Amino acid sequence: MSIEIDIDRLMGELEHLATFSDAPPPAVTRVVFTDTDLAARAFVRNLCESAGLAIRSDAVGNTFARWEGSEPSLKAVATGSHIDAIPNAGKYDGTVGVLGGLEAIRALRESGFQPRRSIELLLFTSEEPTRFGIGCLGSRLLSGNLKPDAAERLADSEGRSLNDVRRHAGFEGGLEDVALRPSHYAAFLELHIEQGPILEREGILLGVVTDIAAPASMRILVEGEGGHAGGMLMPDRHDALAAAAEIILATENAALQTKSIDTVATVGVCEVFPGAVNSVPNRVRLELDVRDTNEARRDDVLREIRQEAVAVAAKRGVSIECTLRNADAPAQCSPIVVSALQNACSKQACTYRPMVSRAYHDSLFMSRIVPTGMLFIPCRNGVSHRPDEYASVESIEAGTRVLADALALLTQ
Amino acid sequence: MSIEIDIDRLMGELEHLATFSDAPPPAVTRVVFTDTDLAARAFVRNLCESAGLAIRSDAVGNTFARWEGSEPSLKAVATGSHIDAIPNAGKYDGTVGVLGGLEAIRALRESGFQPRRSIELLLFTSEEPTRFGIGCLGSRLLSGNLKPDAAERLADSEGRSLNDVRRHAGFEGGLEDVALRPSHYAAFLELHIEQGPILEREGILLGVVTDIAAPASMRILVEGEGGHAGGMLMPDRHDALAAAAEIILATENAALQTKSIDTVATVGVCEVFPGAVNSVPNRVRLELDVRDTNEARRDDVLREIRQEAVAVAAKRGVSIECTLRNADAPAQCSPIVVSALQNACSKQACTYRPMVSRAYHDSLFMSRIVPTGMLFIPCRNGVSHRPDEYASVESIEAGTRVLADALALLTQ
Repeated sequence: MSIEIDIDRLMGELEHLATFSDAPPPAVTRVVFTDTDLAARAFVRNLCESAGLAIRSDAVGNTFARWEGSEPSLKAVATGSHIDAIPNAGKYDGTVGVLGGLEAIRALRESGFQPRRSIELLLFTSEEPTRFGIGCLGSRLLSGNLKPDAAERLADSEGRSLNDVRRHAGFEGGLEDVALRPSHYAAFLELHIEQGPILEREGILLGVVTDIAAPASMRILVEGEGGHAGGMLMPDRHDALAAAAEIILATENAALQTKSIDTVATVGVCEVFPGAVNSVPNRVRLELDVRDTNEARRDDVLREIRQEAVAVAAKRGVSIECTLRNADAPAQCSPIVVSALQNACSKQACTYRPMVSRAYHDSLFMSRIVPTGMLFIPCRNGVSHRPDEYASVESIEAGTRVLADALALLTQ
Repeated sequence: MSIEIDIDRLMGELEHLATFSDAPPPAVTRVVFTDTDLAARAFVRNLCESAGLAIRSDAVGNTFARWEGSEPSLKAVATGSHIDAIPNAGKYDGTVGVLGGLEAIRALRESGFQPRRSIELLLFTSEEPTRFGIGCLGSRLLSGNLKPDAAERLADSEGRSLNDVRRHAGFEGGLEDVALRPSHYAAFLELHIEQGPILEREGILLGVVTDIAAPASMRILVEGEGGHAGGMLMPDRHDALAAAAEIILATENAALQTKSIDTVATVGVCEVFPGAVNSVPNRVRLELDVRDTNEARRDDVLREIRQEAVAVAAKRGVSIECTLRNADAPAQCSPIVVSALQNACSKQACTYRPMVSRAYHDSLFMSRIVPTGMLFIPCRNGVSHRPDEYASVESIEAGTRVLADALALLTQ
């Protein structure tokens, strides 16, 4: 089948979507359920309606745009991603999967293709953890990986509950109605930028994801003893920041020690109290992120970090409190979907390689209830979550074309 | 001479002064030229007026309360300290020197003593660096250690200039008129809590300061490469926070390596950008404080930290920028003033020992232009700059009594 992607239309829509931002260009800040996010959602919804798709949203704002197949009673095939963006992010993370998915559907319609199964485009709510402290909020609820009553207890840093915020955004109904039954869909595919350097480095056009790494995050509070930076003698100190520095290095080391390229560990947050140049720090809050394709190895790394933190605390006479914030299981992609994506790459004459997704995505949670696959396109220098995030026109075109072909294969 | 300190009056005034705070008790937050600071200054000014002292203030808000001597043309003897407090501080740092100084003057007046030299109580502006990033703002200007045009370029973190803020607080005139001529005063004495553990540990009532340690502070900016905490592989990282962690530990180590109890080094500020759990830190700002009684040794420590930071940067492929924010020379106290304080301790039957001041004080700068000495009282567990800072009633009484006696000796 010859699939013609209108790449100019798609690139124009990606550029326009990037203008819905609370940061000046090229940065994009679009936190879930802000006025900016709601305006961006309206823009995407209008595009879907113009393409002849039927729209519905659930109680948490996940939005579904449906192209009815010739046999509507069959399970549908779905594709999609998210459009929310962390502060000072770029314009491709998530959005390529939403607008690229829409373009793939339009290309199939315009080619005269008639699917047996219906095709749905999904826009997931709050893939980014910015506002409510938990990533993949929409897909966790959809897949039953977050209990509705736990979601109802979520609140943003200003104390506004998820329930308040979603209702204010126009998403009514009970969260208990969000979960899909297992095997609601025949398949789910997500087109996404790699957020890593491998495809670019190897000069390969597309990545077919076989595994999604298992994310975990941990908070470590270090309580030492504060005091005057001049008056407190060195032997008397229990400096919370010096202890935290050792834990930061132990975290890095724990990831390196596995000797696997698939292990990563990051301390992204280090808040120091009281945070004055002339005060010995008495308290530090660290937030750690550990990921691996191998759950047992990831849990070993978490254990190693915790043990090192305990040892540092004992040595320095400080106290620590480690709290595991989340630890999700890794996922394997569905062989059926992987195979459809590989076939589509071959048919569309695109180079590809199997890959691990080290970032986690809504696909991680969709994979719990639906045969799932992901298609990666390269991003320059592996950079993501930054204003200089960039994916080439060629790679977006190729990814969208292969996505369309794979949807066609899976809907027949 | 029998000197009767009205310790109940003094303790009541210290307690009342602590109620001028932007933090809930027992914490004290009183940043210079806030409404709270201005209200506290008015309280102290009223006490001075009630005691019959004549008040004047200079353009930066340093305030002088004068008891005219029998020979007003002689150089006056001065005592005093500061009342500003860093966020979440205690109630004794600085305030004991201001209200204790006032009580010493009142006790002398009430005893019928008539000084030949005038006695002035000084309240210095912004001993703490909280608002304008530089400690001892008032005494630096008084002593000519800060040029008026450099002071005019100072601004707070909200961008309000010192000039705006001081004028808004009611302190008019040019900063060029603040500097005193050298030997304006015959002597300056400052009563202060030790902010260290030595007096308490040795069970000695008072410390007569002979040397004031030389403070220096340095800012180190680390620029690495940010990215997605999942997608950025460990070998590709140039993590600014991991580099900063090594610099924090190198700072501690540089101080320990001198093997002198008089060297201290502290990283009190560590700000991480972007500061998200799922982002590799691309930038960190460290603020370091290094002090020593020996200026050459302190400068060796600064050099060592800088060299280590450069080595860390090279090893990790990050860039660093070290900026020396201030590096003041240490001071020796005046033998005349030290001797007056020692004599007063003996006469008042108080145990005392010679001491080094590891914290720096307005006395450091006053010592550049006036024969200066300091009198320390113990503070519990050596704790300062914290809500649980505490000095006993007995030690405050003894310090105030010895201060009064030393003022009497120096004014005759």
